[in-house]
Amino acid sequence: MRPIVLATDYGTSGAYVGQLKSAIYTVAPGATIIDLTHELPEFNPRASAYLLASFLEYVPPESVIVGVVDPGVGSARLPVVLEGDGYTFTGPDNGLFSIVARKLSKARWSEILLSSEPASNTFHGRDIFAPVAVQLASGSTPRLAPAPAEDRAGIQWPDDLHEIVLVDHFGNGVTGIRYRPSDQERIMKVHGEKVRYAPAFHCVGPGESFWYGNSNGLIEVAVREGSAAERLDLKTGDPVGFDAAG
Amino acid sequence: MRPIVLATDYGTSGAYVGQLKSAIYTVAPGATIIDLTHELPEFNPRASAYLLASFLEYVPPESVIVGVVDPGVGSARLPVVLEGDGYTFTGPDNGLFSIVARKLSKARWSEILLSSEPASNTFHGRDIFAPVAVQLASGSTPRLAPAPAEDRAGIQWPDDLHEIVLVDHFGNGVTGIRYRPSDQERIMKVHGEKVRYAPAFHCVGPGESFWYGNSNGLIEVAVREGSAAERLDLKTGDPVGFDAAG
Amino acid sequence: MRPIVLATDYGTSGAYVGQLKSAIYTVAPGATIIDLTHELPEFNPRASAYLLASFLEYVPPESVIVGVVDPGVGSARLPVVLEGDGYTFTGPDNGLFSIVARKLSKARWSEILLSSEPASNTFHGRDIFAPVAVQLASGSTPRLAPAPAEDRAGIQWPDDLHEIVLVDHFGNGVTGIRYRPSDQERIMKVHGEKVRYAPAFHCVGPGESFWYGNSNGLIEVAVREGSAAERLDLKTGDPVGFDAAG
Repeated sequence: MRPIVLATDYGTSGAYVGQLKSAIYTVAPGATIIDLTHELPEFNPRASAYLLASFLEYVPPESVIVGVVDPGVGSARLPVVLEGDGYTFTGPDNGLFSIVARKLSKARWSEILLSSEPASNTFHGRDIFAPVAVQLASGSTPRLAPAPAEDRAGIQWPDDLHEIVLVDHFGNGVTGIRYRPSDQERIMKVHGEKVRYAPAFHCVGPGESFWYGNSNGLIEVAVREGSAAERLDLKTGDPVGFDAAG
Repeated sequence: MRPIVLATDYGTSGAYVGQLKSAIYTVAPGATIIDLTHELPEFNPRASAYLLASFLEYVPPESVIVGVVDPGVGSARLPVVLEGDGYTFTGPDNGLFSIVARKLSKARWSEILLSSEPASNTFHGRDIFAPVAVQLASGSTPRLAPAPAEDRAGIQWPDDLHEIVLVDHFGNGVTGIRYRPSDQERIMKVHGEKVRYAPAFHCVGPGESFWYGNSNGLIEVAVREGSAAERLDLKTGDPVGFDAAG
Repeated sequence: MRPIVLATDYGTSGAYVGQLKSAIYTVAPGATIIDLTHELPEFNPRASAYLLASFLEYVPPESVIVGVVDPGVGSARLPVVLEGDGYTFTGPDNGLFSIVARKLSKARWSEILLSSEPASNTFHGRDIFAPVAVQLASGSTPRLAPAPAEDRAGIQWPDDLHEIVLVDHFGNGVTGIRYRPSDQERIMKVHGEKVRYAPAFHCVGPGESFWYGNSNGLIEVAVREGSAAERLDLKTGDPVGFDAAG
């Protein structure tokens, strides 16, 4: 059975994740489930899409990824499946998989055809996507219809998002901008403050801020042994970018 | 081996959960452990009892559930086992299983007879309930004595608790009141504010508050793409109820 | 395959833990992974060392423990392996394993010889220690060179650390001081306040503070059904100790 990887905005508190896993284990007791993250930005499929795409390299090949950031749960957005390069994704069609899809050499989209109403209209992760993921992971096929790629949400989003997409546990601010070594001389502008490049934490003094290419290939703003979020007042959605004069 | 489901107030920080699982894996390396939730309301077995009962439908059948919210750890409250409908629960006798017990078609209570002192008098989850759960999950029988249902804590608690029992990751306020479709015309009163019913988030405008029947069958107060907890100043234990005029 | 136990300062939010596990499952799909804790004190290998040592008794024997609290990631501190009493530890050489090493009857240190550059210079947990842990857990041997114990970081740290090393989910303050029953008459001094011993929570009144020997053998400061952290303004690193007159 293929591993099932969870990426949601459910948070680690509460019982959403526990019920999602219970739904999987109930039908597939031996499943391998990996909590990739439950802290994707709430109500924000766009920021989440850039993060999820950055994690792809470090997910086991052949994984089935359940991705749910779903402010429109209960409304008409389609439940979808995205396949490519051995990975399969399932979740709502709200753009969450749009950046991942660009990385796949051959992305194939399908709509999930539900055979019955989901048990709830607020928890589709548990009631639609978990059961579909188990089917996909165990080699059986849910009822699917082809869905044209050009109709999918998020298709118009840029390749680099010049925003903070995550403030992490250490107070680092992850951006949606891919790291390129050729940008090392450039200066980031964050809320009007200028932040220079450094390759790693030990290259600056304790308490100093810098930007660097993080371990997932995105540009990240950090403070050594401190919180960039506090220092620079960062939150998800804040604009960042290279200084024109940088 | 039956799955072992954990439901505690230990939080996801710290090492309480890690040690509980280590205790299980040490004697049962192949165990399937499901973290249902570690955010049951601290020091509050009553509110926790309503939440735990609401999750029962989504727990794998035949599970052994370790339930620990235990402000009286180290004192004389009994360690108990509750069995019924294929499920087995183990934890302190402080009412945490009292609402679940009413849902079981045939509830049978037992007291756990300890063969030795627990290693600590502050961490019975690790030292009493985890080992008992492994025995139950693997088909061997801990030493038990029958315990009369009518002597159990929480037996006098109402079927519906008119209080907030959880503030979740999104700021939603879960109540201990079961959802009935016939109540849709009624108006909830929360800290003096009137809150109307809507079936799901997309049925109200962004930032609007409403109440609905949540995915576990309880009434929940929410704000679309916002925090009901902030808006209505909600915390566990706050009174809620239907407006008499509603 | 031996169980792999994770003890880090990564937090349960974000995707650090998810990527660490993905790295393990990618090469060892059937691995047993135990999240002992991801809330070791950030940037503080010294406080973390006392906590980690206190957990050792409750970790499955034969475990491979990945321990990462690494403010110097990317700098020259060695990646190391520590073996003894059936356990194997891997992580950075910054003192995190120094207190654990004193508990082992025969501690043997090695330096990890890297065959290639790690994929990132900020996430050695995923890129160095997880792969090494899988090798160790599955019985193959990473390239190692002996490392003299007397050169290891933290060797000069005291056996008891008179500081708060963790503020837990309940607001309890764990110290780095081992509990000895002979100290029960002594009075702890915490930010100038005097705190007396009690064996367990139910022995004091609700809202009362006390100190006790916690379930891992360390002295802990707590308030019954309340937060010692709030009451006594506790945070990691704060000095505590026995009152001279106590």
